[in-house]
Amino acid sequence: MIKIAILGVGTVGSSVVKILEENADVIKARCGKKIVPLIGVVKDLSKARDVNIPLTDDIKSVIERDDIDIYVELMGGVEGTYSIVKEILHKGKSVVTANKAMLAYHRYDLQKVLKNATMGFEASVAGGIPIIKALREGLSANHIKAIKGILNGTCNYILTKMMNDKGSFKDVLKEAQELGYAEADPTFDVGGFDAAHKLLILSSIAYGIDAKPEDILIEGIDNISSEDIFFAKEFDYSIKLLGIAKKQGSRVEMRVHPSLVPKDHMIAKVDGVMNGISLIGDFVGETMYYGAGAGGNATASAVVADLVDIAREAQSPMLGFKSAGSKLSLMPKDEVETKYYFRIKVKDEIGVLAKIALVMEKSQISIESFLQKTEVKKSASTTLFFATHHCKEANVQNALREIEKLEFVLIKPSMIRIED
Amino acid sequence: MIKIAILGVGTVGSSVVKILEENADVIKARCGKKIVPLIGVVKDLSKARDVNIPLTDDIKSVIERDDIDIYVELMGGVEGTYSIVKEILHKGKSVVTANKAMLAYHRYDLQKVLKNATMGFEASVAGGIPIIKALREGLSANHIKAIKGILNGTCNYILTKMMNDKGSFKDVLKEAQELGYAEADPTFDVGGFDAAHKLLILSSIAYGIDAKPEDILIEGIDNISSEDIFFAKEFDYSIKLLGIAKKQGSRVEMRVHPSLVPKDHMIAKVDGVMNGISLIGDFVGETMYYGAGAGGNATASAVVADLVDIAREAQSPMLGFKSAGSKLSLMPKDEVETKYYFRIKVKDEIGVLAKIALVMEKSQISIESFLQKTEVKKSASTTLFFATHHCKEANVQNALREIEKLEFVLIKPSMIRIED
Repeated sequence: MIKIAILGVGTVGSSVVKILEENADVIKARCGKKIVPLIGVVKDLSKARDVNIPLTDDIKSVIERDDIDIYVELMGGVEGTYSIVKEILHKGKSVVTANKAMLAYHRYDLQKVLKNATMGFEASVAGGIPIIKALREGLSANHIKAIKGILNGTCNYILTKMMNDKGSFKDVLKEAQELGYAEADPTFDVGGFDAAHKLLILSSIAYGIDAKPEDILIEGIDNISSEDIFFAKEFDYSIKLLGIAKKQGSRVEMRVHPSLVPKDHMIAKVDGVMNGISLIGDFVGETMYYGAGAGGNATASAVVADLVDIAREAQSPMLGFKSAGSKLSLMPKDEVETKYYFRIKVKDEIGVLAKIALVMEKSQISIESFLQKTEVKKSASTTLFFATHHCKEANVQNALREIEKLEFVLIKPSMIRIED
Repeated sequence: MIKIAILGVGTVGSSVVKILEENADVIKARCGKKIVPLIGVVKDLSKARDVNIPLTDDIKSVIERDDIDIYVELMGGVEGTYSIVKEILHKGKSVVTANKAMLAYHRYDLQKVLKNATMGFEASVAGGIPIIKALREGLSANHIKAIKGILNGTCNYILTKMMNDKGSFKDVLKEAQELGYAEADPTFDVGGFDAAHKLLILSSIAYGIDAKPEDILIEGIDNISSEDIFFAKEFDYSIKLLGIAKKQGSRVEMRVHPSLVPKDHMIAKVDGVMNGISLIGDFVGETMYYGAGAGGNATASAVVADLVDIAREAQSPMLGFKSAGSKLSLMPKDEVETKYYFRIKVKDEIGVLAKIALVMEKSQISIESFLQKTEVKKSASTTLFFATHHCKEANVQNALREIEKLEFVLIKPSMIRIED
C-alpha cells in the first residue's frame, strides 16, 4: 500500500481522491499496490468539500508524519511552496506536483535535493496529456530539434473564437470569462506567462537547459485584431499562441508569442480549449500530442499516473538527464530568426509604400508577400500587410521603431511571427 | 555500458545502429550509460550493408554469448522468432522488439517467461509515436473507454489520396506501390491485418484482454469506391481505416474496418502516411497521438527509447498489469452496435425504395439519412445511400443478405461503419 497526503484539496485535489476511489481496481491491477490518500491539507477547514478523506489545516503536522510515502502538492504558489517541497524531499519522501510556476523557477534546485526520493510533475504541463513522459522517455533516442506547443487553453479558446466567429479580443475574452475558461484577472493566461512556465519545463527535459521566465521572449495575445484575423484567413494561416523551443547549433531559442501557422499543419487544427504539442526529433520526425490541457479530472489523471509510476518503481530521471550540465546555451532574444507579418495603418497618400519599403531594406528585411486593404472607399487611411522572409528579431524591432516614426503612420504598427 | 545484439539488420536495424552512434552523447546523458551494439545477426552475409558493426549469420552463437545485455529482435516472423525470443528471455536477458505479428499471437506467452528480464515493444505499434508508453503509463489512472487508431500508413495514404484526388482504389494502390508506400503484395496492409495486430497489442495494455487476430472483426479498404467517397464528402465525413476497441460494461468490442469519421474530429485530420491514435479515458477524456507510423528512423527511435528505459531501470510491467487475469471478455462480432452506411445500386423502377425500407424495418434498422444519386440522366440504374441510427451488426449483416436477394438490386450492396 502506498500512503499519500494531498496538500491542497481544490478542484484537482478532489479529482485525485475521486480517481483513487473510483478506479482503485484498475490502479491496483496496474501497479500491484493500493494507493490510499490518508489526509488532505486545506487552508480553510470551514469550506465545504466533496471529498471523503480526513482534512486538516496543519501542514506542519502532516509533513512530520512518518507514515506518508508520497506528498501530492496542489497548493500553487512559488517560494513558500518551494520551501515546503524541499523540506519533504530532504526527508527522503517523494513529491508529485502540478505546480508549473514553482518548477519554472526551481526545477533544478529541486532536482538537487532529490536524494532517494523522486518527483513527478506530469500534471504541470498540458494537463492530462502525457507530454513529459513522451519527451523524457518516448523520444529519448532523439536530439530534439524543436518543440511547438499550444500550451494554454484559454488563449486557444479565444483565438479559435476570433477566427471562427469574428469577435474582438475584448468581447471573446468576456465570453470566455463567463464560461469559466478565463480568470477574472486573465493576465497570467493571455499574457503568455502560463505557457512560458510550461515551455521552460519542457525545454529542460528536451535540452537540459536552465532558464527563467525573465530570460525568454514572452508576448500575449491581447494585441490580436480583427485585421490580423483577416490577413490570416487570406493567406491560409491559423493564429495560435505557441510556446516554441528550437535547437540552433549549440544554442536554444525559446519564445512564447502569437504565431501565424499554416492551416494544414496538425497543430493549426487544435481548436478551442484543447492543448496540442508538436515534438520534432532528429530521428522520429514530427510527433504531435493532443488533449485537455486543464480541468480537475484531466490534471488529476496525470497526477495519479505519476503516483502509479512511483508505485511501479519505474521512474525516469526527474528532468530526463542523469548527467548534469547541458552544453547548450540560451539564444539571446534579439538573435532569433523567423518570418514576420506586419500590419501598418497609414494615411492613404502617394509614396507611403516606397518609404516603408526603404525602411525594411535598410533593416535587411526582405518582403515575401504584400497586401493592401482599404476598409471604406475614399477613406483617408489604408492598412498595409507585409509577410517577410526569414530575418533577425533585432532588425524587425528596429524597423518597427523606424516605421512608427514615419509621419503618415497612424498607429503603432503590429507584428506577428510566422511559424512555418 | 549496456551491450546489445541486433537480430536482423535491415532498414530498422541499420537505423538503430545509426542512432546509437550519432546520438551517443544525448543517450548517455539521459540514461547514464553508453549503449553499444556489439554484433548484428543477418541471414545473408554477402549482402552489402551500411552498418559499422560486426555481422554474423550464426544466431545460435550470439544467443549463447554471456556478454550481451539486451537483444533487439528485428527479424520478423512469428513462430520461429517466438522460439528464439523465448530462449533469450529464459536466459534472463531482456528483449526489445518491433515484431507486432509475434506479439499479436504470443504477447501473453512471452509475458509468462519474463522472469527478471524485461521486454520492450514500443516500436511494434505506430512506429515512432510513444503510444505504448502513453497508454501503459501516461493514462494508467484511467479506465480506457475507447481506442480509435489510424494504425496503418499505407491504408491512410490510399484513402487520403482517394478523398483528395478522386482516384480509384486500384490506381491509387498502384501509385502507392511505386512510391514505396505499399508492398508488392499489399494484402497484409490493405486487408486490415497489420492494423489488427497493433490493435490487439494496444487492447491488452488498455484492458488486459487476450485475443488473437482470428477472434476479431477485420475488414480491409479494397471495397471503397468513388461513390463512397462521394457520399463521405456530401455528409462531411472522412473515410479512415480504424482499429477500434471499446469497453462496453464487462465486455470489450474490437474491430478493424473502414470508418466514416466526422471531418471535424481530430483523427479525421490525420492524412497521408501518418498514424494517429485517439485514447479516451474516463478521467482524462480524449487524447490523441500523431506521427510517423513506419520508416526505419521513426521505428528505430522507439527501439532505442526502450533500450534507454531498460538502461534507466525504469520499466513498467510489460503489458501494463502487475496482476494477471482481466475480468473483461471479448464481445462477439455479431453483437457490435454502431451506425452504418449502405450503398445499394438498383434498377431505377417504382417501389424499389419501399421494398428496401421494408427489409431494413424487419431487421430493426432505423434510417437516419438517405440520398439517391443517378449518374446519367435516364439511366436504367440508380444508387441509394443510407445512413442508419445505431443498430446491431448481426441485423445489418442479415439485412444486407436480404437486400442482395432482391431482384432489382444490381450488385452486392456495400456497407461502411460510421464512427461518431
